[in-house]
Amino acid sequence: MPKDWAGSGVDLHLEISTADGRRRGLEDSLREAIRDGRLQPGTRLPSTRALAAELGLARGTVSAAYDQLVAEGYLTTRPGSATEVADVSPRGHASAIPPAAATLHDRSAPATPRGRAAPAPTIPGTPSAPEVSIPPMPSAPLHDLSPGQPDVSAFPTRAWLRATRQVLSTAPAGVFGRCDPRGRIELRAALTGYLARTRGVLTTPDLMVITTGFVQALNLLATVIDGPIAMEDPGHDFYREVVRRTGHEIVPLPVDELGAQVGTLASATAAAIVTPAHQYPMGVPLHPHRRHVLREWAIGGGLVVEDDYDGEFRYDRQPVGAFQGTAPEHVVYFGTTSQTLAPSLRLAWMAVPQALIGRVTEAKLHADAHTEVLGQLVLARLIETHDYDRHIRAARLRYRRRRELLIARLGAALPGATLPGVAAGLRALLLLPDDGPAEIDLLDACERRGIALRPASPLWHGTGQEGLLIGYAAASERAYPHALEALAKTLAELGGRPARSSP
Amino acid sequence: MPKDWAGSGVDLHLEISTADGRRRGLEDSLREAIRDGRLQPGTRLPSTRALAAELGLARGTVSAAYDQLVAEGYLTTRPGSATEVADVSPRGHASAIPPAAATLHDRSAPATPRGRAAPAPTIPGTPSAPEVSIPPMPSAPLHDLSPGQPDVSAFPTRAWLRATRQVLSTAPAGVFGRCDPRGRIELRAALTGYLARTRGVLTTPDLMVITTGFVQALNLLATVIDGPIAMEDPGHDFYREVVRRTGHEIVPLPVDELGAQVGTLASATAAAIVTPAHQYPMGVPLHPHRRHVLREWAIGGGLVVEDDYDGEFRYDRQPVGAFQGTAPEHVVYFGTTSQTLAPSLRLAWMAVPQALIGRVTEAKLHADAHTEVLGQLVLARLIETHDYDRHIRAARLRYRRRRELLIARLGAALPGATLPGVAAGLRALLLLPDDGPAEIDLLDACERRGIALRPASPLWHGTGQEGLLIGYAAASERAYPHALEALAKTLAELGGRPARSSP
Repeated sequence: MPKDWAGSGVDLHLEISTADGRRRGLEDSLREAIRDGRLQPGTRLPSTRALAAELGLARGTVSAAYDQLVAEGYLTTRPGSATEVADVSPRGHASAIPPAAATLHDRSAPATPRGRAAPAPTIPGTPSAPEVSIPPMPSAPLHDLSPGQPDVSAFPTRAWLRATRQVLSTAPAGVFGRCDPRGRIELRAALTGYLARTRGVLTTPDLMVITTGFVQALNLLATVIDGPIAMEDPGHDFYREVVRRTGHEIVPLPVDELGAQVGTLASATAAAIVTPAHQYPMGVPLHPHRRHVLREWAIGGGLVVEDDYDGEFRYDRQPVGAFQGTAPEHVVYFGTTSQTLAPSLRLAWMAVPQALIGRVTEAKLHADAHTEVLGQLVLARLIETHDYDRHIRAARLRYRRRRELLIARLGAALPGATLPGVAAGLRALLLLPDDGPAEIDLLDACERRGIALRPASPLWHGTGQEGLLIGYAAASERAYPHALEALAKTLAELGGRPARSSP
Repeated sequence: MPKDWAGSGVDLHLEISTADGRRRGLEDSLREAIRDGRLQPGTRLPSTRALAAELGLARGTVSAAYDQLVAEGYLTTRPGSATEVADVSPRGHASAIPPAAATLHDRSAPATPRGRAAPAPTIPGTPSAPEVSIPPMPSAPLHDLSPGQPDVSAFPTRAWLRATRQVLSTAPAGVFGRCDPRGRIELRAALTGYLARTRGVLTTPDLMVITTGFVQALNLLATVIDGPIAMEDPGHDFYREVVRRTGHEIVPLPVDELGAQVGTLASATAAAIVTPAHQYPMGVPLHPHRRHVLREWAIGGGLVVEDDYDGEFRYDRQPVGAFQGTAPEHVVYFGTTSQTLAPSLRLAWMAVPQALIGRVTEAKLHADAHTEVLGQLVLARLIETHDYDRHIRAARLRYRRRRELLIARLGAALPGATLPGVAAGLRALLLLPDDGPAEIDLLDACERRGIALRPASPLWHGTGQEGLLIGYAAASERAYPHALEALAKTLAELGGRPARSSP
């Protein structure tokens, strides 16, 4: 049914096929007109009422077609304004389209149920199936106790913006031109100094590689390792999946109260990924004797990969120095801003032994050329001005208080539950007693009450201990006590004890 | 020789071993003191003269040790200031350390001599070999005709900063929290609209994946392709190397004056990576009949990967629409900001057929979780406000003038040389006549005169045609005519003709 359409300043010939229904026909026709330029960007469309009258369609049909094209990005709409062509408004879309399939890579978050692949994200709309419904935007959790996430409401926005302005005012060739695959020298130099003084890391700027996060660092490393890789058991299950996908055999490295049992490392194992400062998730530092054993194994030919994921956050005593400083030619050191500033920055670093730097650099070059430059230069300035230190010091004080509150509130909420290793980090592991509630029942109860946290059992390579992984950093300062209280009540109720009131 | 050292407010016990020489002993000792915190960040060191006198060393020894530690990031120094501990000054370092091994991934730049791996970057200083000398910082080329790089001196700094301020003022959970592996919905929605209206790309935000550049997009894609991959011959040799490293067999796809000879694609070939809008490097658009043949091959089961690397830059006629729009379920579409804004941003995108989006998303998740968020949100705003369009329009005008100047100046500089396909893009391919100068001699002459450009022959899979790949965008507006003039004179001289003077 060809139609000449003239209204609201738009004069357009729309060929509307009704073979697949009127709504779909109208959508196809508008999409086509936008794509081939007959409908120019910024063009205001007629109201649904006017167009429906003109085309002899139900107003709801026109309205549904507009909605679909808004969701697809062809049209934009704002409250109180006409619908326009292709002036894509992010804000407008954010409310119409689900912002994300659940992000699955949370540092402390089991990304995938063990042994299964991550579920593909939902694809609500496609060109060939425009009729699918668009689910409502998922809301943020009421009580955010997600592990491994810092309090982003405390992000040093002003310092970041100031440094951005300064960086952008420097020579454009430096800021916008290509970059060494290892990253900008300014950041590598700043980090070399920073890591030397705060973590005892012994390296040089030329042996550092800036990556887009810990996950990429793992992937780069896997390309230069030939043989089985030992990973702590329990340990981070998403990272295990990342390594598994690189094709390497994974050897479980058991953990006890002295840390990883590094005496079990065989000489056939090529590399061992460990968390010596603060075992993930058990929290213990690697015992000095074990450090010695690990160093001997490394000098004998093994490669140690030190994941110093939250070396900045210790509360009870002086930080344990990086293991890397004791054997820099045998250790790859990993650090990240995901725990200190924000996971969205995707800025991490590796200090690499000289024997491997060439191959790691080549792997980075062929993986994604180099890491984005502006963020690197801004971070270098924050380190240089000590804004980075100040931010971490302030965060450390806040997180220490939160940890104390957590111990006080959860310590007695469930008889028999234990909280190993909370001397450091941004999270606590709560292990359930044998006669306590089941992990799955607790998770269900938490979900019903809007409490976001993670199960503990997927952290083990085999059958895991049941429990909860509780992040005490993610919530804002105001929200945290309420989140903790909600969890304590849930624990007490499922543990069969009356909930105590908040202190 | 233990020494008590007190001077300039620093009171320090330095154990200086002379086993490896005095300079190295002093370096080790200072490094140790900085690492274990005895020398605090910000501490001013004594002058080289004072310390030399105190320790009984030659002043040059102290000076050399300071220099080494500055290079390693332990010390910092500024003209007219004292040397300080670990207040790492990016600027100070930039002048002391080579900023980069030559970056090898230039879009138009042969990254590696064909068949050889990229050379590992030089590692000038390591903990175990602190005596290595530090080469001087390489200077920028006098005449920058590097292909595949936009004029970054025209980067829209003010618009970028303004958008950054706006983005940072929004809710922190959105800006700093985790993100869908595919990227932020705001950018995917903005790009969906932008690509639909400017390039005729038919997709939805849910089928888009934001990557850290074209190289990463290639790697992600390789994980979901099972079988040989056809790549244009000639084509981009660095991307060939990226694909080769993924383990896929590479099938040459020959190019003639109608574009890629897609009729040669076998059904056993799993995918074909093509540049239909503007063949790289020959410049021809894919002939309409060839587009039809390619579409049939794709519908028959092949996957087409459309590299729309500079679809924005056409000068002679209306842009050729994206091939993707003709078969969106069989084409992966790649675009990037590297040619439009700056290669340092590392922001690119893929529009993926529905059948592949789940696997590509999983590959991205396990490659590096997701792309950095701040840059995504800033770019989304620039698209939304049309600052992005304005920037591209202005650049297109400038580059068109530069191209005209190039044709006028080089067209007659070397008899028999040809300049195929300069109707679009940021670069020109100059093919040398059989009886003309050799590519290698021209490159040598250019290098001696400070002219940065690239040889053409590595672009072919087998034996290549000799020539030059000349970027007319990289230089600033002021510098470009001089660079072109220097090249024209070089060509004329080696071609045996007297250099004409500039018009």
